[in-house]
Order: sequence, then C-alpha cells, then structure tokens
Amino acid sequence: MRITVLAGGVGAARFLRGVQAAAPGAQITVIGNTGDDITLFGLRVCPDLDTVMYTLGGGISEEQGWGRADESFSIRDELAAYGAGPSWFTLGDRDFATHILRTQLLAAGKPLSEVTRRLCERWQPGVELLPMSDDKVETHVLLDDAERSLVHFQEWWVRLHAAVPALAITAAGAQGARPAPGVLEAIADADFVLFPPSNPVVSIGTILSVPGIRDAAGAKTVVGVSPIIGGAPVRGMADACLAAIGVRTSAVGVAAHYGPDLLNGWLVDEQDKAATDDPALAGLQVRALPLYMRDLAATAAIAQAAIDLARELT
Amino acid sequence: MRITVLAGGVGAARFLRGVQAAAPGAQITVIGNTGDDITLFGLRVCPDLDTVMYTLGGGISEEQGWGRADESFSIRDELAAYGAGPSWFTLGDRDFATHILRTQLLAAGKPLSEVTRRLCERWQPGVELLPMSDDKVETHVLLDDAERSLVHFQEWWVRLHAAVPALAITAAGAQGARPAPGVLEAIADADFVLFPPSNPVVSIGTILSVPGIRDAAGAKTVVGVSPIIGGAPVRGMADACLAAIGVRTSAVGVAAHYGPDLLNGWLVDEQDKAATDDPALAGLQVRALPLYMRDLAATAAIAQAAIDLARELT
Repeated sequence: MRITVLAGGVGAARFLRGVQAAAPGAQITVIGNTGDDITLFGLRVCPDLDTVMYTLGGGISEEQGWGRADESFSIRDELAAYGAGPSWFTLGDRDFATHILRTQLLAAGKPLSEVTRRLCERWQPGVELLPMSDDKVETHVLLDDAERSLVHFQEWWVRLHAAVPALAITAAGAQGARPAPGVLEAIADADFVLFPPSNPVVSIGTILSVPGIRDAAGAKTVVGVSPIIGGAPVRGMADACLAAIGVRTSAVGVAAHYGPDLLNGWLVDEQDKAATDDPALAGLQVRALPLYMRDLAATAAIAQAAIDLARELT
Repeated sequence: MRITVLAGGVGAARFLRGVQAAAPGAQITVIGNTGDDITLFGLRVCPDLDTVMYTLGGGISEEQGWGRADESFSIRDELAAYGAGPSWFTLGDRDFATHILRTQLLAAGKPLSEVTRRLCERWQPGVELLPMSDDKVETHVLLDDAERSLVHFQEWWVRLHAAVPALAITAAGAQGARPAPGVLEAIADADFVLFPPSNPVVSIGTILSVPGIRDAAGAKTVVGVSPIIGGAPVRGMADACLAAIGVRTSAVGVAAHYGPDLLNGWLVDEQDKAATDDPALAGLQVRALPLYMRDLAATAAIAQAAIDLARELT
C-alpha cells in the first residue's frame, strides 16, 4: 500500500504516527509544508519538516509537540545577552544543531529535498519526507493594524499569537515554485492521498498552492481529517486563518473549501455528525467518529478509518 | 598612555590582563591575529579574537584558557549524531552563539572589524579589539607527509597536534590583504607597541605579514616578551612552527628572527639571562626577569617591565 500525506506540523506528525500504526507495511510519503520556514540568526529553520522528522524519529518534545526533547537554551540566552533578536522565536540548543547543519548544506548548494533526506538519515522517520518545494515559498500575512503591515507568518503566529486579525494570507513565491523532485510522482503513484488534521490554510493550503500539486492530488482519491471539532480548531489558531480567507470555522466549512473536485472523503468528529448529510458536502463521503488524537490507539483508529474510507472510494 | 598590542590567543589574552593591571588608565588597542580563523559547519570561528574578548570580558574558561566558562556541548553531540564533521574541533554551545551571530553579521555584509566591535559591546573587554584585517587571511601548513598535504593551520594544530612536521607555513591571502580600519592608526598613534609571548610565527608573524603593519610597527618602539623559556615554548607548540621556518627555539632565536629593525626591547626569563649579552641581539635592549604568567600579579609585573622598558626606549 502506498500512501501519500500532505503535512503541516504537530497535528500532521501525530496523525502520521497513527498511519504508521494502522498500516505498518505501507510505503508512506510525506509532503511537508515549507511556507512556515524562516531564517533566524542566518539559519534556515523548517518547523513543519522538523516536527514530522523529530516526531517520527523519536526526538520530539512530547509535552510541546514541537522542538527537541531534553532541550537546553544556552544559545538563546547568549544571543539575548548580545542583544541579538528576535527573541520571540525560541530555539533550543539541540534544535539549533539541525538548523546549523541544514544551513551549511543549503549554502553548499544542496536543495532542501536533499538536505531533508540527509537529516532523515539520522532520524529514520520510517516515511519518505519531502518538502513541497525546493524553491523558497514563505507565508506572509497582511495584518489589520494601523500600518496594514505585511509580516512573515511566524511573526503573526508566534509573536502576535494571531491576535491581530489577518486581512490576507499569501504564499509568497508559490506561483513560481516547482514541486520538489518526487512530489508529483509520490502523489501519482499513491493508492490514495490523506490530509491530516493540519491547518487548511497555512499548511495544506500552502502545499496545494505550489503549481501542479493540487491537480495531481485532485486526480487521486483524497480523504481528509477535519482539524475543526465543534466549531473550533483542536490545536493552533486555524480559526484566525480561516477568517482571513472567509471560510467558516467548521468541519463543513473546511471540507467545502477544499471542494469536491479535490476531496473525496472527510472524517468529522462525532459532535459534527450533522456534517454527514450536509447538502454543502454533496459528492463527498463524510464519516463521523471520535477525532481527538488522545493517544496512539485513538490516533491509529482515526488513521484506520481514513485508510478504510480511501480504499472504499478508490 | 596609548599602548598597541599585537595579539595571538591564550598567551596574549593573559598578558593583556597584566597590561590592564599595570597600566589601568592606558588606552589599549589590540590587533588580533585572524590567520587561525576557520569556517566550521558554515560558521566563521575566530579563535584568537574570541580568546582575547572572552578573557578580558570575563567569559573565558579559566581552566582551558580558551572557550567559554560553564560550557555545554549539545550541539557538538547533535552534529556528531548527524555524522557531520569535523569532530576534531570542539565548540561549546555558548561559544556557538558567538559564531552564529558573527556569521549572520558577516553574511549581512558587515566587515569583521565592525562585527568584532558589535560582539565586544557585550563583553566590554576594556581594550579596543581590532582584527588585523577585514580581508580573509588563512594560515596554511604544508605537511611533511607522503602527500605533502596543504592543510588549514587548525587541522595541523588541533587535529594533528603539530606532530607531523611542517615544511612551510604560509598566510594565504595576506599579500593582498589590507590592515583593518584603525590598525595602522593605532600603531602610529601609540606611545609604543608590545608583543606578548604569542607564537612568533602563526600569531605575531601572521599579523606582521599583512602589508603595512610591519613597517608601521618598525617605526615605533617595540618591546616583546619571549614566548620561549629555557628552549621550550611556555604553552603551545611554537617549536614546531619555528622549526618550519628554520628558527631556533630559543629566546635569542625568536628575537633575532623579529630583527633589530622591528624590535627594540626584549624580555627573557631569568634562565635565559645569557641572552642579555648575546651578540646576536646587538642593538636590542634585553632584560631578564621571571616570565611565567603564574597569576595576575606575576603577569602584571611582566607587563610593567615591558612598559618600563618601552618608555625608556622611546
């Protein structure tokens, strides 16, 4: 069984653990969002790729869901002592090593996909992890403040906690970006494609904005897991992103936003059972089941349901 | 009083503490060797500048004489786990922060002299610390091995512990390098110039190889402190460097190598008292006194003797 998964950060990484548990023999390719990537202190940081890599490779901080376990923060403290900013994005010492090596390899001319493969040689995540593109795509947010400031996604998300409303969210560079080597093939060769409960705007949406990826996925069976339960995001501030693009924060709203030309199956939580016969989702197979990824067993059950639905629809 | 000091690493940094103690009101400019600088993991490391900065700024590891106090080594361990080399040059986490910030500022186009000033804003070393040049000069060593390998100085010094004989030592890039802004002025405006007991080949020698510096120093009163006591270097492997350039490892040999056109006064240890009337040093004022920098008081006495001699000769 070949499964290709479009992935954001924490939610996707946890879901992928469920997929691995539910389909231990499957060949899984993960296409990771790089729109959140940011250069800090001259080092290239890829939060979503690293969250997937660390989570599946056993290096993640389980409490946080991101960053490394057993972290120390000497470098953060030293940079602060130098008065070097920004201080709102915290990186641990162990994590810094990943960014140092990545930056060194990128500076040597290696594309991000090759660098990611090199980093995964250590972590052995059990999936093939591909960045959506080797080209630079950065999610920028137009803030509804007095200056209508245009800021990097991380500044809105991490520094401002998405508390300032966004007027628009754009994937800068996406139009001219090409899918990384292997991305379109992984989609075309997959038995089906899964969307984890990732942010539909700044994670899955950004991946789909790379020319060719949406069309490739649309030609396959796609089953998604709603990141919205009972009208609220399970984690993160997806509601602030959905508001910026005029989509209602609901399981139905997100599925309708993806659209029936892309999505074939949709898993919603039991409390959103009404979505299963919502006329707005005509043409979609919608199933309701417990969607909170409380532990690996619960997550594997969700993944199993997604796989079952995808196989039925293929 | 204005004093300009040409400086290598550990020996120079300790000597400078003595100068500060002996001449608390003096305006001291330190011209640091950058020939030992090396790019590791994509980060620019300046061992000699940092040793001076950390020592005078209170951040040095007193036990080692180099690197930061209270160090941890997460990044080193992580890079090793990635299989990323080299492993023979150990950098601590706190130290890494300095190299990260330096590299970021250099990449932004700032010259090393400006970057060094920026780093010193934190450390407040009490001296003006200038790199000898903003241009890249790297000390390379031609090894007397089967391949007659040409390696970076640090590879010979740190990896090979200078155990493989050197056929030649060259300051690559020196010929085309210009003294950093302020270097020639600091020499010209100084009451006198001091050479600490630094390596005469790969520290002081490298600084002097930058066009203009030797001539500027030669026009001033220069007093040096012998790095050789009783025919052996006090610290480090200066004998291996001296052998490579055909100079005898002795207090007399080093002073004669600098030459009377450059050097005016020379301090030797009591056990090298014979140097005071060695005909090879005719034209030099040579004084014998205890030269081991055992503690700050002993070091200040050496610095005081150097200052006294320089003032007599000026």
